[in-house]
Amino acid sequence: MFAQRINRLSGSLIREILSLADKGDVISFAGGLPSPEAMPDLNLANIPQSMRQYGATEGERSLRESIAQELCNRGRECCPEQVLITSGSQQGIDLIAKLFVDEGAPVLMESPSYLAAIQAFKLFGADIKPISLQTGGLDLEVLNKLKQPEQLRFAYLIPTFQNPSGCCYDMPTREAVAEWLTTHKIPLIEDEPYRELVYSASERTPICSLIADSPWVSLGTFSKTGIPGFRVGYLTCSEDLHPYFVKLKQATDLHSNRIGQHWAWDYINGPLYPQQLQKIRELYRSRRDTMASALAMHFSDLAKWQTPAGGLFFWLQLNSPQDTRELLPVALQQGVAFMPGEAFYSDSEPPKGAMRLNFSHASAEQIDQGLERLADVIRRGLN
Amino acid sequence: MFAQRINRLSGSLIREILSLADKGDVISFAGGLPSPEAMPDLNLANIPQSMRQYGATEGERSLRESIAQELCNRGRECCPEQVLITSGSQQGIDLIAKLFVDEGAPVLMESPSYLAAIQAFKLFGADIKPISLQTGGLDLEVLNKLKQPEQLRFAYLIPTFQNPSGCCYDMPTREAVAEWLTTHKIPLIEDEPYRELVYSASERTPICSLIADSPWVSLGTFSKTGIPGFRVGYLTCSEDLHPYFVKLKQATDLHSNRIGQHWAWDYINGPLYPQQLQKIRELYRSRRDTMASALAMHFSDLAKWQTPAGGLFFWLQLNSPQDTRELLPVALQQGVAFMPGEAFYSDSEPPKGAMRLNFSHASAEQIDQGLERLADVIRRGLN
Repeated sequence: MFAQRINRLSGSLIREILSLADKGDVISFAGGLPSPEAMPDLNLANIPQSMRQYGATEGERSLRESIAQELCNRGRECCPEQVLITSGSQQGIDLIAKLFVDEGAPVLMESPSYLAAIQAFKLFGADIKPISLQTGGLDLEVLNKLKQPEQLRFAYLIPTFQNPSGCCYDMPTREAVAEWLTTHKIPLIEDEPYRELVYSASERTPICSLIADSPWVSLGTFSKTGIPGFRVGYLTCSEDLHPYFVKLKQATDLHSNRIGQHWAWDYINGPLYPQQLQKIRELYRSRRDTMASALAMHFSDLAKWQTPAGGLFFWLQLNSPQDTRELLPVALQQGVAFMPGEAFYSDSEPPKGAMRLNFSHASAEQIDQGLERLADVIRRGLN
Repeated sequence: MFAQRINRLSGSLIREILSLADKGDVISFAGGLPSPEAMPDLNLANIPQSMRQYGATEGERSLRESIAQELCNRGRECCPEQVLITSGSQQGIDLIAKLFVDEGAPVLMESPSYLAAIQAFKLFGADIKPISLQTGGLDLEVLNKLKQPEQLRFAYLIPTFQNPSGCCYDMPTREAVAEWLTTHKIPLIEDEPYRELVYSASERTPICSLIADSPWVSLGTFSKTGIPGFRVGYLTCSEDLHPYFVKLKQATDLHSNRIGQHWAWDYINGPLYPQQLQKIRELYRSRRDTMASALAMHFSDLAKWQTPAGGLFFWLQLNSPQDTRELLPVALQQGVAFMPGEAFYSDSEPPKGAMRLNFSHASAEQIDQGLERLADVIRRGLN
């Protein structure tokens, strides 16, 4: 009765965890939820009545102009006609899968990578070629040895404060990746949800700005620095790809929430936006530092990690690798949630013993208390 | 480089027409836009700040309860757990294609049918089996002769004020279709965007309420009686299908606009909702009657039609069948837009000579003036 792709439709661990972690007094490091304290007020007094009507598939012109300008500021020349507003940047991933992925199509991804992107690409039948991450970004030695690179439909990368690893590519790696993609004419998909969440000086040059003559897509969102409940994201791309994305978007949901689009335009062009970004960064930097201290206190004998320069997550490698998916139910019983690292690998036998810990949502007090509980769970698991 | 489905990605005539009809003083009967006069005010003062955060994939509990209750009132027993909020009801069509449609999968559709559903199902590779419509609904004689009905992945029907034909199934046809679907265990997809836009007494019993033990999906929206700019629709279905739709929705865009969901809940549960529905019906009934008079005036020698009991469209059959796609550029030059009937058929050689005319968006004065222009275009085309 169902399409064959449904055999590849995996239940989402994130989803099931979030539904459990929502209950009672569980301290959750599992999701990637912004803190309500970091969100601007929901001020909707200025939304014009004209936003009630059906809108253009591409999105509101004014918002597309702001987004194009911002990408130009980052060194990637582009015009408003290259922007498509999406229903969250997750929808960009769905549209990319529709445009590029047939059953068995090879696609390149970082390993580990964003869980919901792995799921979306797999649903459409992608054959994922994982390339491991090092401190400075993608492992170039492995990349250069990849067989038949010209067969790849695209490379999906999160170069700035990667999810889940927190990795931020250095400049030589960004340049080398751009050159490799251009040489083999492989479309770049650059996902940048975290780039504004920067706490220490970091290289943030978009790889798409280093590509001259090869297809590229850049995904962005207002969900991490604005209001996720609106579901407003955006996809910007090279001119050759844009008409396809517009038609695919139209067949998917006609157009995106106009009230949210107007709000987003008003927000990012308002006089208080720079201050708001500063406020978010200060809050999250402080929580990151709280988590760094609490980890040093409770985990120094249990795991290794690096303090991320931005983004929302710590990525821990346990000293005694065990399947952290098995630790999760025990942790939940003890009132603490985390994301098992195994979920972020496309392999059927993923590497074991990593954990992703979010630091944006829990309060400073909860961070300390939750990590103490979690360390306890791991210690008991070892005995 | 692209997926094979991109060969089946058709440009949308609707889209191109709308972009042309938007300009200058074109009177447009092309789209299915609600009248701004029929829309409630955009009152957003009551949206709680908690709606800013990421939400559940299924949608807001309170809204799902209201929708389930409404479906119960229409005779289809169901609970809130069977409801999924979607990004417009167009997204329901995308999720249905993902769940059911492989390349070459046979699906049943009315002929003519909703253009964007034809496009979405074709994009995923559906082999559309068209069944023609009669005054009382689907042609049962043709339906009963259909070979290998058990191979069908689903039947997509718009039984109440169909788009584009305006057809409303009578009760015997609703019952016969329900029995046929149940006998062959074919999932019913019942799309009901227009059911509240009723101007004359009509049979509106949902076919899904006549199905006992067979899969079903019912699609609905707040875009026709509320605010389309929010993109809030819903998909309700039999219990066996619901978990699949939730996982597919999550992989598509995580969840729908929460601000719009809260607004919709507030709107349909507010004390003024019955009055607002009444107001919309009166406005559109009056415009329908204006169009009926103007058609009698300008088109009586050119075409045949029936006055629809609800919905948004007149469906005209020209007396001298010609490809109305060729009339369209001429009409646009004369300042009037319509939808060529050919676009609503899945056949590669569609029947010629039908036109769809929307009566909700243009004013009474524009309706008369626009139809005069359009009749003129057709008359000149005949000479």
